[in-house]
Amino acid sequence: MRTKHRAEVSVRLRLADDARIGPGKIALLEGVGRSGSIAAAGRDMNMSYRRAWLLIDSLNRMFDEPVVFASPGGANGGGAELSALGRSLVAAYRAMEAETEAAIERHFAPLRARLTQPGEPTPEPKATQAD
Amino acid sequence: MRTKHRAEVSVRLRLADDARIGPGKIALLEGVGRSGSIAAAGRDMNMSYRRAWLLIDSLNRMFDEPVVFASPGGANGGGAELSALGRSLVAAYRAMEAETEAAIERHFAPLRARLTQPGEPTPEPKATQAD
Repeated sequence: MRTKHRAEVSVRLRLADDARIGPGKIALLEGVGRSGSIAAAGRDMNMSYRRAWLLIDSLNRMFDEPVVFASPGGANGGGAELSALGRSLVAAYRAMEAETEAAIERHFAPLRARLTQPGEPTPEPKATQAD
Repeated sequence: MRTKHRAEVSVRLRLADDARIGPGKIALLEGVGRSGSIAAAGRDMNMSYRRAWLLIDSLNRMFDEPVVFASPGGANGGGAELSALGRSLVAAYRAMEAETEAAIERHFAPLRARLTQPGEPTPEPKATQAD
């Protein structure tokens, strides 16, 4: 069931001094999981390979196990995949984000009714799109 | 009771196309509530008066009632105070944020145990500080 929420949310958290997680890193990890490639995941987000690699590297140093395993080189430019820890990180973030969205719905409903610019009119239901 | 949470969180939400709420605007509103002055609230956040005023103005246009009532001029440079709607907005954000922090604790506890840099050692309990 798709809840009719219009609020978009972005949660950034800092687990320790240099351990920051936000929607960009999580989307990049999801892209690696889908494409099997750091380069392809970065391209999908209009990100240079260098930037994508640096973000993954920072995540890999954050925990006691890498979140992405990458094999360099080879005819196809190497491949990459999420570790179990990487999958756990994505799942934790998305579960927390869903709870945050529910909390926003709950707490902001009365305020949303008072917006001067109430956003787009409710669109026609349509086939599932990429979120 | 103070929960022992180390994660810091920043939630930004978009209620409609031009209706964005984040920790900066909320802290500014709280400052206006405390100090009775847009200028003083901005100064506390190292923000120019112009920037503070523009942020408050954007919030005032967001809803069908201002979130801050300001009286210009006068010997003391005018005053400002939160409207009922402004207080509701701050309360909704802080309640949502507390639920997000709880969700982070719940979902990220196993991952936090695996950080290579587990943050500061648990500090001595001390007198209440500004959060």
